[in-house]
Amino acid sequence: MTAPPTSAGAPASAVRGPGSEQLLADGRTLRYYDDEGGSGAGRERPDERPLTAADRGRAGEVRQDPLTGDWVAVAAHRMTRTFLPPAGQCPLCPSGSAGSSGAPSEVPAADYDVVVLDNRFPSFSAGAVGPEPGSLLDGEELWPVGPAGGRTEVVCFSADHDASFGDLGVERLRTVVRALAHRTEELSALPDVAQVFCFENRGEEIGVTLSHPHGQVYAYPYLPPRTQALLARARAHRAAGGGNLLADVLAAEKRAGTRVVLEAEHWTAYVPAAARWPVEVHLAPHRDVPDLAALEDDEREELAHVQLDLVQRLDRFFDEVEHLPYISGWHQAPTGEGRDLGRLHLQAFSLLRSPGRLKYLAGSESGMAAWVSDRTPEAIAERLREVAR
Amino acid sequence: MTAPPTSAGAPASAVRGPGSEQLLADGRTLRYYDDEGGSGAGRERPDERPLTAADRGRAGEVRQDPLTGDWVAVAAHRMTRTFLPPAGQCPLCPSGSAGSSGAPSEVPAADYDVVVLDNRFPSFSAGAVGPEPGSLLDGEELWPVGPAGGRTEVVCFSADHDASFGDLGVERLRTVVRALAHRTEELSALPDVAQVFCFENRGEEIGVTLSHPHGQVYAYPYLPPRTQALLARARAHRAAGGGNLLADVLAAEKRAGTRVVLEAEHWTAYVPAAARWPVEVHLAPHRDVPDLAALEDDEREELAHVQLDLVQRLDRFFDEVEHLPYISGWHQAPTGEGRDLGRLHLQAFSLLRSPGRLKYLAGSESGMAAWVSDRTPEAIAERLREVAR
Repeated sequence: MTAPPTSAGAPASAVRGPGSEQLLADGRTLRYYDDEGGSGAGRERPDERPLTAADRGRAGEVRQDPLTGDWVAVAAHRMTRTFLPPAGQCPLCPSGSAGSSGAPSEVPAADYDVVVLDNRFPSFSAGAVGPEPGSLLDGEELWPVGPAGGRTEVVCFSADHDASFGDLGVERLRTVVRALAHRTEELSALPDVAQVFCFENRGEEIGVTLSHPHGQVYAYPYLPPRTQALLARARAHRAAGGGNLLADVLAAEKRAGTRVVLEAEHWTAYVPAAARWPVEVHLAPHRDVPDLAALEDDEREELAHVQLDLVQRLDRFFDEVEHLPYISGWHQAPTGEGRDLGRLHLQAFSLLRSPGRLKYLAGSESGMAAWVSDRTPEAIAERLREVAR
Repeated sequence: MTAPPTSAGAPASAVRGPGSEQLLADGRTLRYYDDEGGSGAGRERPDERPLTAADRGRAGEVRQDPLTGDWVAVAAHRMTRTFLPPAGQCPLCPSGSAGSSGAPSEVPAADYDVVVLDNRFPSFSAGAVGPEPGSLLDGEELWPVGPAGGRTEVVCFSADHDASFGDLGVERLRTVVRALAHRTEELSALPDVAQVFCFENRGEEIGVTLSHPHGQVYAYPYLPPRTQALLARARAHRAAGGGNLLADVLAAEKRAGTRVVLEAEHWTAYVPAAARWPVEVHLAPHRDVPDLAALEDDEREELAHVQLDLVQRLDRFFDEVEHLPYISGWHQAPTGEGRDLGRLHLQAFSLLRSPGRLKYLAGSESGMAAWVSDRTPEAIAERLREVAR
């Protein structure tokens, strides 16, 4: 277990500052965040694409599944979204760069460090075209429906089309954490947002449609099923005399030790005892913290080191795989009811069972939500410790 | 909407008879079910492979995820299971046939109609090598663990390696239904089985590891998460003055009509109002029936026609795709508590969004269980009506 070096402390602006905003031609908002705490001010340029607000994608509706209680977003327009565009047509490369063949992209700036922009094909958005909140589909009580409100944003980690998360470096990681914390804070304040989820999908194996290094922010208008299950468990755990469930799980993992991957001053990474993916690791702060926005400066600073270390280890998990395809998501406390039961943690996992072979979610997983795992959590942890540098 | 022809009624033996059993060399049980109600007696042949009980795969353990309450099966041995064997090495073709290159396969008979055998690489089995029931991992209350008891069986639909479900014909469908009903009845009577799930995974796109036409039966030692959610909803629905939730959903779908795909005398197929997959359809009996074993003769007879019709429509969903990759599963009532709240229904769905493009379960789905669908349920239903013959 390696304790990563902790810097003497970056200036407060490096971990707190908001980004500089501009409007795109279709009315979407874009924000620049520069390294070393820079706001990105001065990068704004006119969006020269011939678009208007009418070209802006809008989310559709949400429907509640009567059999499970889960809300399902129906976003029919997303069927036509950009799918693995050819080289030179990347919408996330800076405008005028080689990545966009010199043409205007979705990012007007000639260069940038980190950019956050509203998703062009949103699953959830303020201007959702769905039915009024509280409506019933076909007039049936069994089928509550509403607009797919909330927000979906795209977070570009680098102007370099070919960069990968593990190559970004600590300075950039600080900027990414700052941007995500800022987006979490701002989106959490919106009345129609129940929870903010920041995640990265990486690799064509899991269906990534744009290869430019980027993550996403989903600000859900309802509590997603995983969160609902977690809150129900956390509430029962507390009622039975326990503390914060996620804090107690972290303490138990530290006591057991067999699945701990790394322990730093403010953070511990472990493979959860009931991990369900072929590769899975969680990263949790030692202090009870609801979300990224609530982290102290030294916690953010160490996070930049620890997360980079962890992603680099994931990239070394299989000798033959340079960049592990993965899903990496920050679970944060709900913005409203149940906020005291939540606790920040990163869940990173891969569907890759071995080089060239994916874990598919077939009948048992997709039909019954009953997971069968092929690799023990202890073996995953052992490998993640083995590939430390 | 096509009402399929209903036969005047097959003999009772055609829908009820058990199969003829034999033991394989490694101690697994295999059962033959012949068309026209035949028991398969006479097909038994010695298993000539040089195996003993020591070669028999055993399931591992189940661990409860403290964050969701879900049980996760850990079956590390399955990492080495047979993966897309080359032509001539199919373990499910009859022994001595071209499909097994004349060698002994897992099916000793020289030919068969339908065969059910214990899974060689079980996720759940009576001889699970996991910890004692009621154990705690690392002595922590947060981590209940136990053996992965229960059963997993493989159901071969045809001796013809290249057959597909839609080609089987009504006579064979009757035999498949009979075999599944018999397995449901027998497995449901076991004390360590909480629910029996009969399903087919089809297509390499969803990770099928053997291309021989086959389905599976999972007899879970616990109630899977989807069932637990359904029972909680059904209980609340009844407490609020409703009837059986699944019956009320069927009635509402029939009233709305827009998502109904076919209506027959005993069965209706519809796309659920909150479908979450790019192609999804449910098939439900008109009578309150807990499971396949409880179907009357005329319901089973019509089912053979209706299910065949439905699968053939799925195969015509995309003009360019001959056999739609799909997951098709029979949800049945739990064997114990909550049995009165359950109700038989088939859920068939595909991850194929369009030819060559899959729906991937990325951050929102896999990390939050929050689904975003790209196609409206009404559009799916319209297409499934359009491709009727």
